[in-house]
Amino acid sequence: TLLENPEGLKMGGERRKITILTSDLRGFTALSERLPPEEVVKILNFYLGYMADTITAYQGTIDEFMGDGILVLFGAPTVREDDPRRAIACAIAMQQAMTPVNEKMEEWGLPLLEMGIGINTGEVVVGNIGSEKRTKYGIVGSQVNLTYRIEGYTIGGQILVSETTLQAAGDEIKINGQKEVSPKGVKKPITIYDIGGIGGEYNLFLETNEEEFVVLPEPLP
Amino acid sequence: TLLENPEGLKMGGERRKITILTSDLRGFTALSERLPPEEVVKILNFYLGYMADTITAYQGTIDEFMGDGILVLFGAPTVREDDPRRAIACAIAMQQAMTPVNEKMEEWGLPLLEMGIGINTGEVVVGNIGSEKRTKYGIVGSQVNLTYRIEGYTIGGQILVSETTLQAAGDEIKINGQKEVSPKGVKKPITIYDIGGIGGEYNLFLETNEEEFVVLPEPLP
Repeated sequence: TLLENPEGLKMGGERRKITILTSDLRGFTALSERLPPEEVVKILNFYLGYMADTITAYQGTIDEFMGDGILVLFGAPTVREDDPRRAIACAIAMQQAMTPVNEKMEEWGLPLLEMGIGINTGEVVVGNIGSEKRTKYGIVGSQVNLTYRIEGYTIGGQILVSETTLQAAGDEIKINGQKEVSPKGVKKPITIYDIGGIGGEYNLFLETNEEEFVVLPEPLP
Repeated sequence: TLLENPEGLKMGGERRKITILTSDLRGFTALSERLPPEEVVKILNFYLGYMADTITAYQGTIDEFMGDGILVLFGAPTVREDDPRRAIACAIAMQQAMTPVNEKMEEWGLPLLEMGIGINTGEVVVGNIGSEKRTKYGIVGSQVNLTYRIEGYTIGGQILVSETTLQAAGDEIKINGQKEVSPKGVKKPITIYDIGGIGGEYNLFLETNEEEFVVLPEPLP
């Protein structure tokens, strides 16, 4: 057994630079307490189904669903050169997938859902982590915690990324704004960036509120 | 597929009062960044193996390993009358299992590990949550977040429980202390209790620092 021969397990472990994406539905926990439990699970499974399809299309690894939260890895187990860029494109596609999700919410007569996404790039330890009976590909490191903190700054519909992700993501990233924040556990302030879109091969842009303004007809003379 | 027929999934969902236990290794994330990655995974797997055996012995459901963190449910999927009491007994046994874990750390020439545990009892939504390809028994609700907050107040070796858990846990719970805290997301302050042991059928007690004092020999006259 494991306890008799822990060294026999040999599940490895590797330090690797990866891009981490976390998302959650802002305010969903509170909403979940007002809805019948069957509705809560129905909404979650509908939403997570859309997100899983999107993440898979962008070659992200879903490490974890935690309630309405998702932890996604780009660069583990498989490293690809464009991991940070693909993570940003994936995040925009996830936000765009909220449109059909919310069409269904409306059809069901339920409140609309709003998702926040945080992305960060840095070194973590990856490996098969767990007990003898229950192992999974997992990650450990302060960069994981930092990603959750960055996500915690989002409002619904927003994608916030760290400077390390932005710098590694290549050209034609549209930024709506930036701010300096001091997340818990980080020694000095960091700058995070509010992503508006990505050009080039992806050409994906978030709808801005401006675009939703209706053009007023010319006033009658 | 799920997207075409989400209602066809029928994975249910239920609101239920359960006892939630979360644990993590205090300071392990920082330690993990100083150690070789193989050592990090070796330590985690050795530690999680011991904890999984202990949790299983107390009929807890391991919902999740997240790095060095563990999320355990008592009362889901199977409800038992003594869930809160068993959760407390399990937590003490987990802390006691740190003794053999740390004997191994010493043997390996590694720093000793310290675990904190939070326990809380309350209503959550439980169900099979996820996408079509990836579903797990999961939980949603503010009581889950609160458990993590309570765990966040621990120092190494400590077990902190909410008042709801303590009141539901029955007789002969030894309390070392209590304090009022105002966790994020909770409207008014709550009292949390520092568990020292459990009598009755379990008879498990944490070693206190006092017990570690050596009795001095009588001074020579």
